[in-house]
Amino acid sequence: MSEYLDTNNIYCMDCLDFLHRIKPKSVDLAVIDPPYNMHKADWDTFKSHDEFLSFTREWLNALNNTLTDTASLYIFNTPFNCAFILHDLLKLGLVFQNWITWDKRDGLGTSTKKYANGQETILFFTKAEEHTFNADDIRIPYESTERIAHASKKGIIKNGKRWFPNPHGKLCGEVWHITSERHKNKINGKLQKQCHATQKPIELIERIIKASSNPNDIVLDCFVGSGTTALAANKLNRQFICADSNQEFVDISNQRLTEL
Amino acid sequence: MSEYLDTNNIYCMDCLDFLHRIKPKSVDLAVIDPPYNMHKADWDTFKSHDEFLSFTREWLNALNNTLTDTASLYIFNTPFNCAFILHDLLKLGLVFQNWITWDKRDGLGTSTKKYANGQETILFFTKAEEHTFNADDIRIPYESTERIAHASKKGIIKNGKRWFPNPHGKLCGEVWHITSERHKNKINGKLQKQCHATQKPIELIERIIKASSNPNDIVLDCFVGSGTTALAANKLNRQFICADSNQEFVDISNQRLTEL
Repeated sequence: MSEYLDTNNIYCMDCLDFLHRIKPKSVDLAVIDPPYNMHKADWDTFKSHDEFLSFTREWLNALNNTLTDTASLYIFNTPFNCAFILHDLLKLGLVFQNWITWDKRDGLGTSTKKYANGQETILFFTKAEEHTFNADDIRIPYESTERIAHASKKGIIKNGKRWFPNPHGKLCGEVWHITSERHKNKINGKLQKQCHATQKPIELIERIIKASSNPNDIVLDCFVGSGTTALAANKLNRQFICADSNQEFVDISNQRLTEL
Repeated sequence: MSEYLDTNNIYCMDCLDFLHRIKPKSVDLAVIDPPYNMHKADWDTFKSHDEFLSFTREWLNALNNTLTDTASLYIFNTPFNCAFILHDLLKLGLVFQNWITWDKRDGLGTSTKKYANGQETILFFTKAEEHTFNADDIRIPYESTERIAHASKKGIIKNGKRWFPNPHGKLCGEVWHITSERHKNKINGKLQKQCHATQKPIELIERIIKASSNPNDIVLDCFVGSGTTALAANKLNRQFICADSNQEFVDISNQRLTEL
């Protein structure tokens, strides 16, 4: 048995055991959707906020050792938790790039004592200033189609220069308007059972992989859940190396990979 | 001269001098758009991130003393800076309510090495669990007008119950899609000179005031800039007590108040 785990596999392993068996400095991109301590399931429940943060710190440390010198790292969580995790990432010497807001377009909250929850945060850090970022591969269609059609022909004078729109659209911003799987799968407003409580839309994971990795790069996810990171990486010709501590989710992930 | 400052005035004062002359426990709502340390102007430039945070901590402490026992507090900044300020607010014993994302719909960033910047954060905290929140006064029109028109007549079965849409719209979420003044005022894509570099849209400030205060309540802003907080408070029949350290901005604010 090799000391290190092979790519293009999904392992049923605890995240720390898994991370300790990844070849150091081998991972080009880590896409991590960890527990949020929102008590959505057993795996998402901690005794306290401090215990949750200690757990997070532990896997962040282990993860950091697996990253190449030009790697990128994306971490999902609530904005509140991210305000803590951001400091741990800075302490590890990682470089802050973006606080991405995922606007879920989901009617989640019903509280009338505050604004309804409806976003998640994705922290985007890199190992160093130098990093892969394929801005042109994730351009977004312009909104004002009429004005853009006009500008494509004659250009628009912008601050004294003639500007022509990019045929692939505008640069991708840090607020992402992507409907949640939970909301998208509703039938007549009724929630449907999902294979995983917090499944991420594949278009969201694909955007991250396109932007921050190149073909054949290694993409890691140590809380892979229903396998979306592995699926997206495979589809985009990247290598993946993923794990989940729950055999049921590993089976679902492998099933989805086979169906691809 | 009274020890304390009167309401419905805009003072040309340094923020700390101003806050020290506010009657303790008198402010129902603080709407604060402080420096971001983005070097947009002299007032927005600090020697270091630490110096910026020390300054922020100082006025937060002074501000905290002015709040009533049921007051609300909104603080604008970049997401990165808010990840620091959040901890200062928790240390003051204030209660976290929302991490509001203002999606500015502004083509601000042109970096091709990360996602384009285009959001600001508004931290919403309250002095205690008990607080004013007028959720019905800030409802937002439903997006799917056809489906809602249908539901208004016959209702929609949702999780076994018949649901009728609220005639005033849906509950307001924590991601706010409000076009920036800078972007709104462009003419043929060309930026126009603004009376203040970081003027906030009045609809944004009005939403905050409607949600977190009642008529005749006292609304404070110690970095009032071009006066938007005073204007919105006045329009909504709240008392205001505002300051800016720059006489030019105080003059602009008073001019705008007169025009109202």
